Amino acid sequence: MAYELHYWDGLQGRGEFVRLALEEARAPYIDVARERAQDGHGEDAMLALINSRTEPHIPFAPPFLKDGDLIVAQTANILLYLGSKLHLAPQDDLRYVVHGLQLTIADLVTEVHDTHHPIASGLYYEDQKEAAEARAGDFIDHRLPKFLGYFERVLEQNPHGPRHMVGKTLTYVDLSMFQVVAGLHYAFSRAMKRFAARYPHLAALHDAVAARPNIADYLASERRLPFNETGIFRHYPELDRAAH
Amino acid sequence: MAYELHYWDGLQGRGEFVRLALEEARAPYIDVARERAQDGHGEDAMLALINSRTEPHIPFAPPFLKDGDLIVAQTANILLYLGSKLHLAPQDDLRYVVHGLQLTIADLVTEVHDTHHPIASGLYYEDQKEAAEARAGDFIDHRLPKFLGYFERVLEQNPHGPRHMVGKTLTYVDLSMFQVVAGLHYAFSRAMKRFAARYPHLAALHDAVAARPNIADYLASERRLPFNETGIFRHYPELDRAAH
Repeated sequence: MAYELHYWDGLQGRGEFVRLALEEARAPYIDVARERAQDGHGEDAMLALINSRTEPHIPFAPPFLKDGDLIVAQTANILLYLGSKLHLAPQDDLRYVVHGLQLTIADLVTEVHDTHHPIASGLYYEDQKEAAEARAGDFIDHRLPKFLGYFERVLEQNPHGPRHMVGKTLTYVDLSMFQVVAGLHYAFSRAMKRFAARYPHLAALHDAVAARPNIADYLASERRLPFNETGIFRHYPELDRAAH
Repeated sequence: MAYELHYWDGLQGRGEFVRLALEEARAPYIDVARERAQDGHGEDAMLALINSRTEPHIPFAPPFLKDGDLIVAQTANILLYLGSKLHLAPQDDLRYVVHGLQLTIADLVTEVHDTHHPIASGLYYEDQKEAAEARAGDFIDHRLPKFLGYFERVLEQNPHGPRHMVGKTLTYVDLSMFQVVAGLHYAFSRAMKRFAARYPHLAALHDAVAARPNIADYLASERRLPFNETGIFRHYPELDRAAH
């Protein structure tokens, strides 16, 4: 049976981390909210599950994955679940190392979101622009180099070499790292200008993931939506500037 | 061998979610940074691991757990790891439901943190007070009722009854839910005024966890530090007001 991925239509957002794992593994899945609103598909199907008064295990927000009766919520948790099913995670205790890295990526993604929504996720960007400029400045000066420097060291210090975040084979966190690097380039092109020189292992990982046949196919397909200003990674020129 | 918990001394913070699981299970552990700085203890021991250039699996930030050579980073991930070792999580696929809830708690905790640090975690609260008042107001009006209403529904819709978040026995997410409710009462006493009437199942869960013998012993011990204004849950009267 195909996995059902529930996430907003029209943006990559957090759902994209899940899509990359499903696409790499060529796992059968339905991107429910992007299907026509019939046969239990569409965004209404997603909202019906979130608002259900009878489901035993309701999600707080998308993305969530439905596998038969089981609903798995939270991006990193979905990847934990799929990682073991799709052979995109170690079977031993290193799976906790992979998951810890994925949760650190999740923290970075939340901080990226908050550069354009520092006050209220329910308000428009335009209504919190001043605070957004302050937060984005701090992000570029302090948080971005801290996160990227950390992930670069993770690659450097991998005893199996810098080609993967953990161990010597691909895991879901490599795919997510690709997505983060791609998103940061889109949102903060000026701040990321010297990225490849400063973080060569991260740059190489990004390129290696993009070149994987199943990922390359996916990125060239219509299923891969372009980055845009309704997602997490948004390009607002006034929030982007050169890093120190 | 005792687990080694690495977290800042002097505050509950995110480390407290881990402590509650260890204390409930009466698992042997060393709260490394709170030990005297000798024999590889103290905050320096924690920072040495974070800054290590040789460790194969470095953490980004505390808390992290060391179990022999394995370093498990990220609060929810530590609980996932300990949950299976300490019998505080289901063995079947429901463990993903528990973990999804824990990650939703982690999101709430981050939002609580950002009520006092909406612009930069590296700046003082006093230097971002105006933005903090705006963010805290939105948190009280919109986010807090959304999260609490969701968790109340999770209890209500548990097919095994509202005594636990998942299934019919205690899991680590019940312990974390206790901590969140206690912290919210400390930080936002005015906003939480009608909490027990609005969220009766959550209030009952909080009280039931507090009354568990091992937790009650822990809460009465010196190991439980009081909430204070260096932790996540801070009481700043100017950020607290009655909910609608």
